[in-house]
Amino acid sequence: MNLIEETVAAIAPLDETAMRDARDHQARLTKPPGSLGVLEELSVKLAGLAGRCPPPLPEPAAVAVFAADHGVHAQGVTPWPQEVTAQMVANFLAGGAVVNAFAAQVGAGVSVVDIGVAADLEPAPGLLPRKIAHGTADMTLGPAMTMDETRRAVTTGIEVAHDLVAGGVRCLITGDMGIANTTASAALIAAFTGLPPERVTGRGTGIDDATHARKVEIVRTALARHGLPGEDAAPLDVLAAVGGLEHAAIAGFVLGAAVLRVPVVLDGVIAGAAALAAAALCPDAIGACVAGHRSAEPGHAAALAALGLRPLVDLELRLGEGTGALLALPLVQGSVRVLHEVATFDSAGVSGKDAGARN
Amino acid sequence: MNLIEETVAAIAPLDETAMRDARDHQARLTKPPGSLGVLEELSVKLAGLAGRCPPPLPEPAAVAVFAADHGVHAQGVTPWPQEVTAQMVANFLAGGAVVNAFAAQVGAGVSVVDIGVAADLEPAPGLLPRKIAHGTADMTLGPAMTMDETRRAVTTGIEVAHDLVAGGVRCLITGDMGIANTTASAALIAAFTGLPPERVTGRGTGIDDATHARKVEIVRTALARHGLPGEDAAPLDVLAAVGGLEHAAIAGFVLGAAVLRVPVVLDGVIAGAAALAAAALCPDAIGACVAGHRSAEPGHAAALAALGLRPLVDLELRLGEGTGALLALPLVQGSVRVLHEVATFDSAGVSGKDAGARN
Repeated sequence: MNLIEETVAAIAPLDETAMRDARDHQARLTKPPGSLGVLEELSVKLAGLAGRCPPPLPEPAAVAVFAADHGVHAQGVTPWPQEVTAQMVANFLAGGAVVNAFAAQVGAGVSVVDIGVAADLEPAPGLLPRKIAHGTADMTLGPAMTMDETRRAVTTGIEVAHDLVAGGVRCLITGDMGIANTTASAALIAAFTGLPPERVTGRGTGIDDATHARKVEIVRTALARHGLPGEDAAPLDVLAAVGGLEHAAIAGFVLGAAVLRVPVVLDGVIAGAAALAAAALCPDAIGACVAGHRSAEPGHAAALAALGLRPLVDLELRLGEGTGALLALPLVQGSVRVLHEVATFDSAGVSGKDAGARN
Repeated sequence: MNLIEETVAAIAPLDETAMRDARDHQARLTKPPGSLGVLEELSVKLAGLAGRCPPPLPEPAAVAVFAADHGVHAQGVTPWPQEVTAQMVANFLAGGAVVNAFAAQVGAGVSVVDIGVAADLEPAPGLLPRKIAHGTADMTLGPAMTMDETRRAVTTGIEVAHDLVAGGVRCLITGDMGIANTTASAALIAAFTGLPPERVTGRGTGIDDATHARKVEIVRTALARHGLPGEDAAPLDVLAAVGGLEHAAIAGFVLGAAVLRVPVVLDGVIAGAAALAAAALCPDAIGACVAGHRSAEPGHAAALAALGLRPLVDLELRLGEGTGALLALPLVQGSVRVLHEVATFDSAGVSGKDAGARN
């Protein structure tokens, strides 16, 4: 199984010619130069990803919600019981979660991937059964995953991206579900950025001061146990040591998007941690990434800074599931639609700046 | 004609009972409390506006683009010739502008209101001919509008809101077009907030340092000529002195939304200036307002702060037309959709926080 290495080798940088074409085209459109702010550069990036201007409209879109459990839950890092992971998966499949409401609002599909839920799940429409393990092991006691599990999870993420794109999807969106997964995210972000645990460990879905202090110490303990951050640590080793099955899968999902030249809108801190792993495996994979939003988690801001990505939405969301990325989808689509549909000064007969006499 | 006074008198505060119901309902939904950040309080506000929980979904939505010209253009505050206002109106009606692309992306309708374009416009589908004057007078030489013109423009804005809502629209969006209208906006914002011209005067659609310095002095001159800011200045007098016909109309549009209990998503600095006028006429009108975005104009941030509104999108846009507000529309709609569609912990069989034993 060497899909990971083949994928990494096949990811190319953004196409400079297409990006130049997009900048030139933006300058001819009936609007003041630069007046679309961050969205202009986003459209240029997506032209570079597609290798042509205009790039295809990023629709239809689909969110893949990767669900998994975490051995570190046993350390008491969250007040939520572990069975909530499986219960929320059932809620997603029944259409009753926020991810479903937001996906309906923006016209995106929802796929749920059981990459490592502790419970055995019944088959259901919309559920992709890809369980690698019944949750990870406790990262404070040993590696969260074996290398084989890690590679299988990354590979599965690549395959899910391929399957969605083969089915016609033109914009991928990351989603996640996993009680305790902000703890693993904090450990990954600390390992990949070198920042101390207290800088990147947040309150997840809501914990008190005492639990937060314990969470920071657990991240510190886990990092120390595995010798992280470590200059020689291979990205897959970092994932295996302190990551989650959903982090590994989302890292693969990002690599899959990049090799297929399809944009992937990243959700919150879990996606940010996973994207750091993908970028460590292949820096050019960032070229496919759009930061959907910035969550309230401090580690997320750190991850986005390390990736050099500016979030499109910043509303103190801290839910996960793909919700923040879904809200950003119309902005991503709108930025590209401008290149397709907006008239030029010439075609619309609009006078340019400085065309008239000044009094 | 006393539609203005009747409207102001009929605007009621937000309904506290409906807001409490919305907060209680948010707490029962299958997500951590508060995890939707700013969008939770937005949904509560919209419940208070509607007077029930859940409030109706804010769809369909429509943007009204109020177009007008400005006598202060003669002072050389912008390199764009005045005829661009009419040319861009034609572009809107042909579907070739960014407002059209974004409206198509989010499923909103587009109406263009000629409230005071200097040129005579041909009839066209989608154009509402409501011209009050062929542009305003130069505010540095005298009042920009007569009181009769001002009242007619405000009244027209109220009427356009009524007409759209009568046609089924459930979310109003402000748009504007008017070469030189950031100059009038800066003067209005300085007059209503008391901030000095240099704090609220920006570069509009793009001007050099020398033009910017002149623009600041022109705003200062106009304010001094009209004795603004002035503690005794009535809001309609301020609009007449330094406002634009589109500012007056948008102020009326906001009042119309508030009396009809329909949300109005504000676009950029022009809408911010107009909303200050509406709020000065009736503070409860702010209850209908959602700040779609924050533009790059410094006066816009000042206006939003004075209104107590937090923008949903912040991407350095500085185009106007309604573009920033349109990008925020799915966020507004998504916040309400959560109240309609998301399952409760009880209904979905999801365990609450603290339901499980902690290790």
